[in-house]
Amino acid sequence: MTTTTHPLDFLFHPRSIAVVGASQGGGMGGGFLPSIVEMGFKGPLYPVNPRYQELHGLKCYASLRDVPTDVDYVISSVPAPIVPQLVEDSALKNVRAIHFFTAGFSETGDDERAELEQTVIQRTKELGIRVIGPNCMGLYVPDAGLSFTPTFPKEKGNVALISQSGANASEFIGAGASRGLRFSKVISYGNAADISEADLFDYIAEDPETEIVASYIEGVRNGRGFFEALKKAARRKPVAILKGGRTEAGGRATRSHTASLAGPIKIFEAVCRQAGAIRVESMDELIDMIIAFKHVKELPGPRAALIVGGGGRSVLSADDVAAEGLEVPHLPEETQAELREFVPIAGTSIRNPIDANMGATGDQGVKTLRITAAAPNIDFVLYSGWFGGGGPGRPPWTATPQAGQAAQPSGDRQPPDAREAAQRQVEMLASVQRDVGKPVILVTSPPASAMAFQTFNALQEEATRAGIAVIPGMRRAALALARLLRWQELRED
Amino acid sequence: MTTTTHPLDFLFHPRSIAVVGASQGGGMGGGFLPSIVEMGFKGPLYPVNPRYQELHGLKCYASLRDVPTDVDYVISSVPAPIVPQLVEDSALKNVRAIHFFTAGFSETGDDERAELEQTVIQRTKELGIRVIGPNCMGLYVPDAGLSFTPTFPKEKGNVALISQSGANASEFIGAGASRGLRFSKVISYGNAADISEADLFDYIAEDPETEIVASYIEGVRNGRGFFEALKKAARRKPVAILKGGRTEAGGRATRSHTASLAGPIKIFEAVCRQAGAIRVESMDELIDMIIAFKHVKELPGPRAALIVGGGGRSVLSADDVAAEGLEVPHLPEETQAELREFVPIAGTSIRNPIDANMGATGDQGVKTLRITAAAPNIDFVLYSGWFGGGGPGRPPWTATPQAGQAAQPSGDRQPPDAREAAQRQVEMLASVQRDVGKPVILVTSPPASAMAFQTFNALQEEATRAGIAVIPGMRRAALALARLLRWQELRED
Repeated sequence: MTTTTHPLDFLFHPRSIAVVGASQGGGMGGGFLPSIVEMGFKGPLYPVNPRYQELHGLKCYASLRDVPTDVDYVISSVPAPIVPQLVEDSALKNVRAIHFFTAGFSETGDDERAELEQTVIQRTKELGIRVIGPNCMGLYVPDAGLSFTPTFPKEKGNVALISQSGANASEFIGAGASRGLRFSKVISYGNAADISEADLFDYIAEDPETEIVASYIEGVRNGRGFFEALKKAARRKPVAILKGGRTEAGGRATRSHTASLAGPIKIFEAVCRQAGAIRVESMDELIDMIIAFKHVKELPGPRAALIVGGGGRSVLSADDVAAEGLEVPHLPEETQAELREFVPIAGTSIRNPIDANMGATGDQGVKTLRITAAAPNIDFVLYSGWFGGGGPGRPPWTATPQAGQAAQPSGDRQPPDAREAAQRQVEMLASVQRDVGKPVILVTSPPASAMAFQTFNALQEEATRAGIAVIPGMRRAALALARLLRWQELRED
Repeated sequence: MTTTTHPLDFLFHPRSIAVVGASQGGGMGGGFLPSIVEMGFKGPLYPVNPRYQELHGLKCYASLRDVPTDVDYVISSVPAPIVPQLVEDSALKNVRAIHFFTAGFSETGDDERAELEQTVIQRTKELGIRVIGPNCMGLYVPDAGLSFTPTFPKEKGNVALISQSGANASEFIGAGASRGLRFSKVISYGNAADISEADLFDYIAEDPETEIVASYIEGVRNGRGFFEALKKAARRKPVAILKGGRTEAGGRATRSHTASLAGPIKIFEAVCRQAGAIRVESMDELIDMIIAFKHVKELPGPRAALIVGGGGRSVLSADDVAAEGLEVPHLPEETQAELREFVPIAGTSIRNPIDANMGATGDQGVKTLRITAAAPNIDFVLYSGWFGGGGPGRPPWTATPQAGQAAQPSGDRQPPDAREAAQRQVEMLASVQRDVGKPVILVTSPPASAMAFQTFNALQEEATRAGIAVIPGMRRAALALARLLRWQELRED
């Protein structure tokens, strides 16, 4: 299917799968079978569990040995003590890779269990079987019909995620999907007893289906190998990494989670810098960074124009942007004069931040945006309204608009048809981004009501279609864009 | 109504109001009349505008001079050039205070308009009329029937807000209300040409209806007076201040917004520290801080127990908490042994963070929380699940649950009845907070879907009732609690 011949490529499109320890309903490990069924895996799929005759409409086998054919890929949910037997059974079935969802190994801090992990890996190496995990969620590859949650998008995309944590991977996929991201390959690899971050970055560097790379890492198994693989990936594709365990307390937690030694964050930071990858510090920041890579791609410079609804918000926005090292220069006199031709003097600001015609999509709105974006001392525009947020005067503690709302004094311009309004808004931003040739970023409030969420959703979808980056909150937008600039500088070095 | 005899007290319960420049429908200034009607103001209310015979069912007067009685309080939406005439008319009607929503004065940077502002204030001083503004939204005092937006809560509360910006005030009220805050007095005071932050802090210090004080300030008119008033307020009540213009770019924006000189942030920070007030850097942080003041009140120390759903989230949570200077000590061996009696070894952590029984409200959930909270080296508990968030496996990009969701592997325990589940959850937290005598803080994800918002809302309401602080996101929770500790130390000095 893909043209790469990377030695790990076989992992991402198995011909047949056995889910060992499959079960009905919820609980840990119960989700793999329905997820793979739901995702539309094309090859033979074998549930294995002596307690069932049938699961999800598929014949269920008492043991892996009872499966009638060879098996490419095994997902293990059996308890740790049963794992050695499963490995021997896998060898009989010519299994090429096992994903151990099974936990209870080195991460417990228990010596016997750590030894068991080592014994298992030693044996799989002898048998030529590759291992994902243990203690992880494994693979989500929509194009190959692989998933660990039935509700992830079936549509594929260009973003890869290399994550030690399964829950963090789920959060990234879920929150990322709602912000328009789609995925080539997601790997949750847990304790990394065999396949490590180095292997995965090396693979992703070559993967033709991956254009942008995100990662959540708790500890590095092989420093030199990781650096080389990361450098290889970061030379070809934008890479953002969230490092778990950046503090001592976090580092203690990584040992309990994936038996990882977090190491000093300064060293990890230096490795990223030298490799050309950008480090972030939260899941939100990771998604924001990928959105910036995807839609903004590159900034011509650090000088921001801020078009903001509200004077106090203008002030706080300028603070947020400047605090990240970006610039908010006063617009040139000529640009101000051009704006003043149609912007009244009372209740507005036109120096920068511009507090005028926010949210307006008629002539004056377009002119305000276009003139501002075209100013010679401006590199990009941050367009920040209440879209999808609470808004001044909108009551976020209620779900429906109230009588009298039309009469409120300021800020609220959300028309009844959120979808149509979102389209007009985004079209305006996209046309200026295209015509003026400078990035325009839409900064929203986080939705503050169920109704606001629908508006936000519509806006997000339209923006994704039109190639406009949407980031909730000026501070997060400023941080992502400042990092984009830093990343550009790393690549120039 | 109140027992205070502060010279500004009359401002907050006017006997009669004229809205000059009142109009129908939306647009700037159109909202005051319907807001005051909606809020249930008890005294005579006079719309003034020569273009109308009647507005909102009230007789409308062509000029303030035509109003048949004296008037206590005037809200002005007329253009700036008409203001001098309005001041003279106000004197004839024995007006005691004018709120100038009217903008277009010193904040424009135009010399003539700055001079007009000075002339107006000189004249109002001669006439003994106090002025709120110009260029602001004025008063929201639910108990007195005053508001600038019809949809603000009618219920009164114990939080005051002193804000130069009207939009920021609206955001604080709206977002705060959705998080369970209610208000005694909110003052948006704009350019502060007469009534200043010093006057307002002095008043709020004495106001018996205000127990917690929030503030958004762009510039201080009278440094010494401000410091004294702030100190007076902060000695009696917890005070949190968001300073607009903490950067040079933000400071330039404050000049265009309220004609304020922002001044160096280090000096403002020192003033706050000496006065005993805590400074924050965003609207979200301001609300979080007030929530911490209201529900947590006081922390016994810096040592946090983290009960978190998910290993990767545990790691990032420990990082977020430690990065703010709080501690995440390993639980004592005896506490771990107590937990291990019923927590299985595989797929859990019990050192701290505790990744076990998150969201469970049965016996095991209660025991996990109670044993953890009671540990001798723990000062407070951060209880952090997916409540109301996307959750791993929950599809935040859809609004309704999907088939197969029950079978997902982890994290999702939201039952069909969100309200009942929220009650159970909050009751458990509140009972441990009460019985063990240590604060328990509920840390949620920001809601990531319309459905999740409903869950979040239910949880928020139940928590408010039970006196449990809810803060979205571990980083924001850690920041608010670290500041609460710092604030406690300031008060000990």
